[in-house]
Amino acid sequence: MLKARKYVVKKHFQGVPKREDYEIVEYDLLPIKNGEILVKSEWISVDPYLQVHNPFHQVPYDQFSFQVGTVLESKNPKFPVGTKVVSHKGWCDYGIIDKFDDPFERVYKLPDLRGLPEELAVGTLGMTGVTAYCGFLELCVPKPGETVIVTGAAGAVGSIVGQIAKIKGCKVIGFAGSDEKVQWLESELGFDKAINYKTADISLALKEAAPSGVDCYFDNVGGEISSTIISQMNRFGRVAVCGSISAYNEDPTRLPKATIMQPSIIFNELKIEGFTVLRWSNPDRWPQAIADLAEWIRSGKIRAKSHITKGFDKLFDAFIGVLKGENSGKAVVKV
Amino acid sequence: MLKARKYVVKKHFQGVPKREDYEIVEYDLLPIKNGEILVKSEWISVDPYLQVHNPFHQVPYDQFSFQVGTVLESKNPKFPVGTKVVSHKGWCDYGIIDKFDDPFERVYKLPDLRGLPEELAVGTLGMTGVTAYCGFLELCVPKPGETVIVTGAAGAVGSIVGQIAKIKGCKVIGFAGSDEKVQWLESELGFDKAINYKTADISLALKEAAPSGVDCYFDNVGGEISSTIISQMNRFGRVAVCGSISAYNEDPTRLPKATIMQPSIIFNELKIEGFTVLRWSNPDRWPQAIADLAEWIRSGKIRAKSHITKGFDKLFDAFIGVLKGENSGKAVVKV
Repeated sequence: MLKARKYVVKKHFQGVPKREDYEIVEYDLLPIKNGEILVKSEWISVDPYLQVHNPFHQVPYDQFSFQVGTVLESKNPKFPVGTKVVSHKGWCDYGIIDKFDDPFERVYKLPDLRGLPEELAVGTLGMTGVTAYCGFLELCVPKPGETVIVTGAAGAVGSIVGQIAKIKGCKVIGFAGSDEKVQWLESELGFDKAINYKTADISLALKEAAPSGVDCYFDNVGGEISSTIISQMNRFGRVAVCGSISAYNEDPTRLPKATIMQPSIIFNELKIEGFTVLRWSNPDRWPQAIADLAEWIRSGKIRAKSHITKGFDKLFDAFIGVLKGENSGKAVVKV
Repeated sequence: MLKARKYVVKKHFQGVPKREDYEIVEYDLLPIKNGEILVKSEWISVDPYLQVHNPFHQVPYDQFSFQVGTVLESKNPKFPVGTKVVSHKGWCDYGIIDKFDDPFERVYKLPDLRGLPEELAVGTLGMTGVTAYCGFLELCVPKPGETVIVTGAAGAVGSIVGQIAKIKGCKVIGFAGSDEKVQWLESELGFDKAINYKTADISLALKEAAPSGVDCYFDNVGGEISSTIISQMNRFGRVAVCGSISAYNEDPTRLPKATIMQPSIIFNELKIEGFTVLRWSNPDRWPQAIADLAEWIRSGKIRAKSHITKGFDKLFDAFIGVLKGENSGKAVVKV
């Protein structure tokens, strides 16, 4: 009987997740039943949303996340042995997949990546990329020549949003949390300007970088930096709210305060829309987005950087690294 | 030569407007030129937006606002002598209208009100009503059975929004600033529930009044009450941001802070859209909205209350009354 290991979340996080909030459980895998598949994990994703969703799950629960694996045993004709699958099975080395239809528990065959690295299937060619692609294009509706701001610009989603904005003919300004990231965004990813929010006067730096105002804002951060950016937006500006990483370590019942945005929202007739990638659960949207993104990577228009950590035992450290902003590009663990 | 009087704003307001910020100027009216009309004012509107727009005008300027008047002299064949006109000519007893095409300086013949009071043309059957009608219906897109929240519910716009929401089959909860207003909203206007925000525990009262959550929020107030309401919204909720009266007395360069909204915006995929009535400058929209509103008033589905102050000399006092929330319904001055 095969031994499997998985990370179980035992406690609700208080602020930053702690190692003790997790337990690595080793157990015997049961024989698979009709309809099920047994998957060996190869690439496992670590993302900020794992923290965000924690309060909404009863503990203990198995740590979910996207992953790429290979089917070892199958009683499901759609996924024969040897098939590479992308699933939301999360932090395990082996796992049995028994749910296929849930919008979040999505399971699909690894798309044909035509030689691109497989780990991209949990990054730019997976949930991360679809989030950037659909969120930015459908909610910001960027037009050529417009000015686009991205916060969390060096993160997995933000770095893709900025590059899509360049493809669409926009001027792109990114905020990130270190000079190394700023350098990477400007010199490698083609951002017109990147600003270290930790050392800059944000309002002043933005006025200088975007003298004609901001048309689109892709918000990964929330809080005061968002109030500042929104106060500099042009009439009919659009904001896609994807993340609120500035508040992820806060008690959700006692969130921080930031400068009110309503005067700008009214005067400039702004539209601010929050989203999760779940809204694009139409099965056509993902393949469409992934195909476009793959084409852009192959043609050199998008650089998809993976921040790879090796070892199943390093999943927690990789996750904390993401929450601390230590990654440039998409964080992923090689099992 | 005809003597005319007008209110001139001499200084930018610091907080609440002061009597000394205004000067009543008496002057000789020049003969009208080709294309112009001379109008005698009859009803003049006082609204919070007069304060909001102050910082964006160079002083001195003539105090604008909507008004109803009668054409005394005309060199414009579209507006012959005796025509009743609605214009944005503002706080004057007589005035010469020389601009007809500016989206905000709109001038149009008084619609056929079929016996309804003429002052409604600067209220429910004018800019106020169009603001409520278009803002609520187009941005909140209410569905029957949904729960709608209105702040500033006893104000000119809010009181109409709540009644339109009832017509559309929604459950309507209003926030207002006195027990008299609460009583009026519930017993006269048919709100399902009204809450005195000055004395209630807002979060708790809202949870009790809207146990299944909030679908639409028409925001006249902004700030902390908006953060509280938005935190209780359902997935895909819609917010129309019309006013930010909580901040109108604040220094616009040092706005107050309120609890951040991004976590709710993301998790519940909310859409928050600010607007001014100017976006509906399509000439068809106003008559359409006004015709629907007039029909609803005639059929008793909407009660349009006017808060009338008499006397040209009382315009400033009437304006301050609105900013203090002393009115229930639309504040208007009979010249």
